[in-house]
Amino acid sequence: MQRAEELRAAVEEYLDRLQLSSELGGLEEAVRYALEGGGKRIRPVLCLATTEAADGEIEEALPAAAALELIHSFSLVHDDLPALDDDEERRGRPTTHVRFGEAPAILAGDALLAEAFRLAVSSGPEMAQELAGATLGMIGGQYLDIDGARSDRAELNRLKTGRLFDAAVGCGLWAAAVPRADQEPWRAFGTDYGFLYQVVDDLLDEDGLARELGPEGTRALATETEASARARLDAIDADTSVLGELVDELVARAA
Amino acid sequence: MQRAEELRAAVEEYLDRLQLSSELGGLEEAVRYALEGGGKRIRPVLCLATTEAADGEIEEALPAAAALELIHSFSLVHDDLPALDDDEERRGRPTTHVRFGEAPAILAGDALLAEAFRLAVSSGPEMAQELAGATLGMIGGQYLDIDGARSDRAELNRLKTGRLFDAAVGCGLWAAAVPRADQEPWRAFGTDYGFLYQVVDDLLDEDGLARELGPEGTRALATETEASARARLDAIDADTSVLGELVDELVARAA
Repeated sequence: MQRAEELRAAVEEYLDRLQLSSELGGLEEAVRYALEGGGKRIRPVLCLATTEAADGEIEEALPAAAALELIHSFSLVHDDLPALDDDEERRGRPTTHVRFGEAPAILAGDALLAEAFRLAVSSGPEMAQELAGATLGMIGGQYLDIDGARSDRAELNRLKTGRLFDAAVGCGLWAAAVPRADQEPWRAFGTDYGFLYQVVDDLLDEDGLARELGPEGTRALATETEASARARLDAIDADTSVLGELVDELVARAA
Repeated sequence: MQRAEELRAAVEEYLDRLQLSSELGGLEEAVRYALEGGGKRIRPVLCLATTEAADGEIEEALPAAAALELIHSFSLVHDDLPALDDDEERRGRPTTHVRFGEAPAILAGDALLAEAFRLAVSSGPEMAQELAGATLGMIGGQYLDIDGARSDRAELNRLKTGRLFDAAVGCGLWAAAVPRADQEPWRAFGTDYGFLYQVVDDLLDEDGLARELGPEGTRALATETEASARARLDAIDADTSVLGELVDELVARAA
């Protein structure tokens, strides 16, 4: 998994060097804390791997890739709040509101989204629209999740998790200047990949789909989704080996 | 004040017709509620009046003007939350979290910011950057406000209130294709206008500057700021009469 690790390192370096607005002042500490939570940077890495596979330069994709991670971090900070999921720990650390207080956490989430917006704008209109649309879909998914109804888990997953994965692939393609008409096979992979992520996550957390389908049924769904994702890659006329590595990584988590 | 009222009507009509992302689903109601609070649309009107005075077409400025109002609404929804100002009423109506609950209000604020971001992107890179930067400054100002320190009220006001007024004028100028090198006199007016708004607001609320300076001192500051704003307009070689009307409106509020 060498190349995936290199892309991950490129994301980490970009995020480390990212200058936040000086006007955030003392709030920067909470913003950095939320961003440096030891996540796997899975969305930005997917974005960069897509760009490379589509014969683009990762430099073109890095601002949008970073924006994806900021949007993801924003969603975690707000989802963890007492009024929403009321989570006190994330990846072994106190959540942002536990560490800094609820008001700074709300504002830190807002700042992450606004910084993402700034990065998105510098990426050009296609990537910016991709990111804005995905953010709105993700928020709509979060609303479905708290609404209590949750009647349609597929729709909930598509919005809350899937939209940002779709945007990761979409931004990767725009960064490689792939015309819209040629993007569909790649986007179909992105959708499968995002769903595989969700299935594996629910399997590990014994939550969501795993609660509905049971461990056996969820494993079967993971195997089926993995096969579909790999078939999507086979259908693309390009070297998609690093995207295949990313599928391997997800599957290894569930093993 | 006929023309200012016409511009206000144009803003209302644009906001009424604004299509929100269908993926927001049931959250749209809370987003609309927050946006339709009976505000004076002062930032978007300032933006449109600037565009007209600079010989531009208001159609070019309307998406950014609407984005300004969405960003302002986002900030109010989050500022009103129990963890921040804990306000139960705004303009005679229950605040968004009182009406819909805290979690939907947090998400509605997020959605307002993301919708603003979408409008901003459609306005082109200059306006989008203007709006992103102002949003970050505003969030930094809100952090100063809750931080307890508040050592520097001028900096707090500049960020929390001023940045969005500055961006209103800035977007108005970009929409009229005024080159950056020619923008300074207009921007100086925007800064004075934003500060006058703050002074009048504090005077009416017996808060902030009014608490520091007393009513007499605050009225004197308002008079001084009004004179400065009018002098800025006189220094601009254009028909700035509608911008003058907007100053009249502010001053009338304090009378």
